[in-house]
Amino acid sequence: MALIVQKFGGSSVADAEKLRRAAEILAETYKKGNDVVAVLSAQGKTTDRLLAQAAEVAPDASPRELDALLATGEQASAALGAMAVARLGVPAVSLTGWQAGLRTVGAHGAARVLRLEGDRIARELKKKNLVIVAGFQGFDVRDDVTTLGRGGSDTTAAALAAALHADLCQIYTDVDGVFTADPRVVPSARKLREISCDEMLELASLGAKVLHNRSVELSRRFGVPLEVLSAFSRRPGTVVRGGAALEQPAVSGAALDRSAVRFVLSGLEDTPGAAWRIFSLLGREGVAADMLQASMGGGKTREVAFTVSEKDSRRCEALLRENRDALRFEQIGVRAGLSKVSLVGAGLTGNPAVAAQLFSALFEAGVAVHMVSTGETRVSVLVDEADAERALRAVHAKFFPRPE
Amino acid sequence: MALIVQKFGGSSVADAEKLRRAAEILAETYKKGNDVVAVLSAQGKTTDRLLAQAAEVAPDASPRELDALLATGEQASAALGAMAVARLGVPAVSLTGWQAGLRTVGAHGAARVLRLEGDRIARELKKKNLVIVAGFQGFDVRDDVTTLGRGGSDTTAAALAAALHADLCQIYTDVDGVFTADPRVVPSARKLREISCDEMLELASLGAKVLHNRSVELSRRFGVPLEVLSAFSRRPGTVVRGGAALEQPAVSGAALDRSAVRFVLSGLEDTPGAAWRIFSLLGREGVAADMLQASMGGGKTREVAFTVSEKDSRRCEALLRENRDALRFEQIGVRAGLSKVSLVGAGLTGNPAVAAQLFSALFEAGVAVHMVSTGETRVSVLVDEADAERALRAVHAKFFPRPE
Repeated sequence: MALIVQKFGGSSVADAEKLRRAAEILAETYKKGNDVVAVLSAQGKTTDRLLAQAAEVAPDASPRELDALLATGEQASAALGAMAVARLGVPAVSLTGWQAGLRTVGAHGAARVLRLEGDRIARELKKKNLVIVAGFQGFDVRDDVTTLGRGGSDTTAAALAAALHADLCQIYTDVDGVFTADPRVVPSARKLREISCDEMLELASLGAKVLHNRSVELSRRFGVPLEVLSAFSRRPGTVVRGGAALEQPAVSGAALDRSAVRFVLSGLEDTPGAAWRIFSLLGREGVAADMLQASMGGGKTREVAFTVSEKDSRRCEALLRENRDALRFEQIGVRAGLSKVSLVGAGLTGNPAVAAQLFSALFEAGVAVHMVSTGETRVSVLVDEADAERALRAVHAKFFPRPE
Repeated sequence: MALIVQKFGGSSVADAEKLRRAAEILAETYKKGNDVVAVLSAQGKTTDRLLAQAAEVAPDASPRELDALLATGEQASAALGAMAVARLGVPAVSLTGWQAGLRTVGAHGAARVLRLEGDRIARELKKKNLVIVAGFQGFDVRDDVTTLGRGGSDTTAAALAAALHADLCQIYTDVDGVFTADPRVVPSARKLREISCDEMLELASLGAKVLHNRSVELSRRFGVPLEVLSAFSRRPGTVVRGGAALEQPAVSGAALDRSAVRFVLSGLEDTPGAAWRIFSLLGREGVAADMLQASMGGGKTREVAFTVSEKDSRRCEALLRENRDALRFEQIGVRAGLSKVSLVGAGLTGNPAVAAQLFSALFEAGVAVHMVSTGETRVSVLVDEADAERALRAVHAKFFPRPE
């Protein structure tokens, strides 16, 4: 017997039929003798509908009231979920964020889970109830309802799994698991049976939208394995577990991020901290820079290059131009229409063969590389957007040859 | 400066435009220097929509989960209401039932307000916030969400007004107030400026659907005046205040209840408690009997007569037939197609002129009377349904002649 947390996203509970299917999975897990805690998102387009209602009443609504409004979507899901589970002969109770005791800190709309207060969930489990918690929400020190922002219900599930010392946290979604590359681009992509948390974090930050980073970070910190799997296919998914995975092959996946814009600042004054000033300004303003590089040449003409995503690029350019005097550079070069192809794996930097294979794959495919950056668990190359899918397929074929 | 509770029903907050109008009333009351606590119902058809969703998922849903689901409707209204009020430059916060501290007892779906816990509302008022409380809901000793059943949001408003020692509780609805008769039937009906709680209770139980009894009872017990008024016309409404109103005219209104069915049980054994056994059986089974009469003649052939509403009549008949031996009667007579016309007023039994005027009005209108019953604050007559509206108009014209 184990304690298992199972989370279902909005598309997995979108209507009565889908709710029934989710309820069947929950009831089945319960009937095998497990303690089950479920976390449900709001149904389908509910959150969008509530946001549209708020916009009609008050385009400038306060974050506190938006949270109070949005939280009702997950509360309704949880109650409907408990009804669906009870129909299958399994006793179930729904709990809101405050009933579950999910105390949060931080701003409305982007709150962070602080701790699990009280023992309501434990008491319900002891009574042999299947517990269904409304995702995405908690309550703060003022007893105000808060929401957790992006990836909210995944975070609820991972936080509950950590606080309850669950044996497993299963994230049901509309894909079968984590793949070696996006199967829509690379038809030969294979589903991974297991991946380390570090690799998963890299994949997520590189454009793979399977799991939100916050849940993976919680999983790593508290040692609760996460499994990503489909509510529809009912096949085993991908287990995310551990920091770095020692026994895995070096490369666990390839990812594609189409929306890269490269910035090159040239003519920088060669003073200590010149690069640091630039990146700390961008960080303060919430512009995420990737593939950071500073040219190491001496003299007065240092250069700093980096990429940002397309949506941030206008603001990034404006910020740099406004602060040109403080940042002390001469020219900005901006190049859009680029894509980032990345290889992710546990031991990439310790394995020189990886870079060699990567570049030979790109060379054989005739793809020009504009920039390279390496990290503990990834290698990324910047290529023309027109070459991006071809590059991803070539790299994937090199590292994951089709089985014979 | 006063503390005023203002309640808006579902039709008064049905869409963004109506919410804005309700917000204007709230903001206006606040800007006059009052402390304002608002109670909002769920928008328009929200509760029906949620019930339909529940029925699709589980026709046998538990009352606990139904309550958890339904409560989201009023929570959303309260949050949207706070947004609408804030737009008008008045600081506002929404509170759910548990945040407001509305502790309840009793069954899910029909909970009763036990007390107001904590001082959240008082603290928000002290901070000069306009407080908007989600109607119809509370939380019980297990911290489970409960709903208050019929008349729920009116009850929330009256309970908050009592607990906070409010100076006035205003119930905004889609009628202008309490009338001497239903204006749709009696075009000359007049709006009352004031009515006593006892009379209001009689009117409500006789078919006038303006205010639910629970709110009137709370008002009487705790001495907070209720005002019924329209959110649309913005005219003064009717104030419900005090037990019996000494200085009012004897008759304050006339009401019509179309769905009366008369039962006559004859051949009863003349033992003590024969009538009591019948009415206690019906009471236990939730069948409300009205106009109870037991014939006082000696010997073996006592008779008991009463009316029930049409919806209860089949069950009433079945109950009586099943228990015929225990109840010891010979025959049941059932007559449907009747209506009850009632006069309500503070001093009716003490005023013999009232009955005389009533019967002369009915006689002049050629209406046959099948049964009469009198109470502390009412006189009811049973007439054929076909005569009902004519009877109401005749009675109303006698007691409320048109001004000259």
